[in-house]
Amino acid sequence: MMNIGILGYGNLARGVEAAIAQNEDLHLAAVYTRRDPSAVQVHTKGVPVREAARLDGGTEALDVLMLCGGSATDLPEQTPRYAALYNVVDSFDTHAHIPEHFARVDEAAKKAGKCALISCGWDPGMFSLQRLYASAILPEGADYTFWGRGVSQGHSDAIRRIRGVKDARQYTVPKEEALAAVRDGKNPSLTTRDKHTRECYVVTAEGFDSAEEKARIEKEIVTMPDYFADYDTTVRFITMEELEKNHKGLPHGGRVFRTGSTGFEKEHGHVIEYSLRLESNPEFTGSVLAAYARAVHRLHTEGRSGALTVFDIAPAYLSAMSPEDMRAHLL
Amino acid sequence: MMNIGILGYGNLARGVEAAIAQNEDLHLAAVYTRRDPSAVQVHTKGVPVREAARLDGGTEALDVLMLCGGSATDLPEQTPRYAALYNVVDSFDTHAHIPEHFARVDEAAKKAGKCALISCGWDPGMFSLQRLYASAILPEGADYTFWGRGVSQGHSDAIRRIRGVKDARQYTVPKEEALAAVRDGKNPSLTTRDKHTRECYVVTAEGFDSAEEKARIEKEIVTMPDYFADYDTTVRFITMEELEKNHKGLPHGGRVFRTGSTGFEKEHGHVIEYSLRLESNPEFTGSVLAAYARAVHRLHTEGRSGALTVFDIAPAYLSAMSPEDMRAHLL
Repeated sequence: MMNIGILGYGNLARGVEAAIAQNEDLHLAAVYTRRDPSAVQVHTKGVPVREAARLDGGTEALDVLMLCGGSATDLPEQTPRYAALYNVVDSFDTHAHIPEHFARVDEAAKKAGKCALISCGWDPGMFSLQRLYASAILPEGADYTFWGRGVSQGHSDAIRRIRGVKDARQYTVPKEEALAAVRDGKNPSLTTRDKHTRECYVVTAEGFDSAEEKARIEKEIVTMPDYFADYDTTVRFITMEELEKNHKGLPHGGRVFRTGSTGFEKEHGHVIEYSLRLESNPEFTGSVLAAYARAVHRLHTEGRSGALTVFDIAPAYLSAMSPEDMRAHLL
Repeated sequence: MMNIGILGYGNLARGVEAAIAQNEDLHLAAVYTRRDPSAVQVHTKGVPVREAARLDGGTEALDVLMLCGGSATDLPEQTPRYAALYNVVDSFDTHAHIPEHFARVDEAAKKAGKCALISCGWDPGMFSLQRLYASAILPEGADYTFWGRGVSQGHSDAIRRIRGVKDARQYTVPKEEALAAVRDGKNPSLTTRDKHTRECYVVTAEGFDSAEEKARIEKEIVTMPDYFADYDTTVRFITMEELEKNHKGLPHGGRVFRTGSTGFEKEHGHVIEYSLRLESNPEFTGSVLAAYARAVHRLHTEGRSGALTVFDIAPAYLSAMSPEDMRAHLL
């Protein structure tokens, strides 16, 4: 039995909790929170909720601590800090800052003799693995990553910050024409606008439902730099009831392609496609983290230390099956 | 530079040769043959062709020897034999015999301090990896593997052994209804007949083109146990010219699915799909083998020995990129 701790209790943490319940060799030892523990109601019966400060001495009996905070402010601070005390797994997903995050975590974990897996999940995570395997196999080729159809929480949050918006949900949608061109091996050059559209469902706050206010809100959305300006964006105003009824879930997914050619004259084309269709983004991500918690514990038991990514972990470490069973049934 | 040797010079060997030419850090040192070397014309200029017997003393300057023989009779004998002398990679694909093949190769390689990767390619190989990753992430779910549309060389050979058949090509074709049911997360129970159909293109030998002979040949095909009896099989008689014109390639591919559910009440469904569309089966397989040759050499340099499968090799070992570049550009 591996003893797993979870820091935080948001959507991802609950996804990890649900995943642990599906794996017989994983045991949820405790949930740690920066809030008042008595205010946190954990789903799994009998699991203690403790103050995050309890983690500080490195004395909690945990094989792996799952860091379920956000990439913007939580993980840059938490992962190096707790990697000095425990084996940890995080889902740091700010692609541009991965190298510096890795370096800081690596230093802390090596010093402490702990294993710290960063940037786990599906992107980064399973999509990264597909990009690596496929580019190693087809060195002469092109990569394409598409996201959706799914809810982007960052983009939904950005809409909610606009004056007069009560709630909002944003879906990222891959363009069918772009998918088809890639899948046909046409090696297209695609701009940001060519690849995805963005669909926004917006509920106005009281006093902001005039045609004028709606036009202003729509304009603020579609012209928002970084988030929407480079995309074809549609905005639909809906009622709170409709949002509650039809847009409560957190589905997501996407596709990674590698197209490339082989042969002495590059005469044969190949298309590798990996696709995810997820009804719950946080639960799927939590399930990836749970499988990698098993791997991190095993690697630590073998004497490994330092920061790791999914690239550094042999697939066999993820599975609860014996090597013999894997070879007999999965190979 | 890694020095690679190839044993055999059939379709797969030429696929490996073409792949080596696409990888700057791999060098084709020699091709080894059991035929008269002077009768073998290698595509790459300047590559020596040597008698297979030259390999016997373990004195050839090779970092990895690629064993490109067949699984029926060549590899069961060759892989343990050469794993005692060199680091080797094979594509042993008789799923039922993998455990015993692994055991025999492991013993020979461990004794010699060599690394021997068995069952590399796409199935077993990349498909196996997808089955492992996906089942570790979604422990409560179901696996589905589909093959095609593509040429099955084993089934084509089986048709050629029928009296009165001059040449033949057999395509394995996945059934669209079955693919759709799996993709929709319906978790269908599928029989052999539900999953694939088999299309046969047959050229009769001289004197066997009467309606009576064709009816006999067709019946022998569709009732052939193991190969065709459990499938919906169609047989079309064509001319040698048509076969040469339209059926000379060796395309293949397929799909691996994992469908599963997460959540405390298993309330959310997920579909993972991995698909390959290959214009040349032997060239793609050769490209997988070439990437893994890099990994085997690196593992051996680190002191590893014994038999390995794709499950045992961390993805980073496959890539020519530095760990820093991988984290910056692929993660």
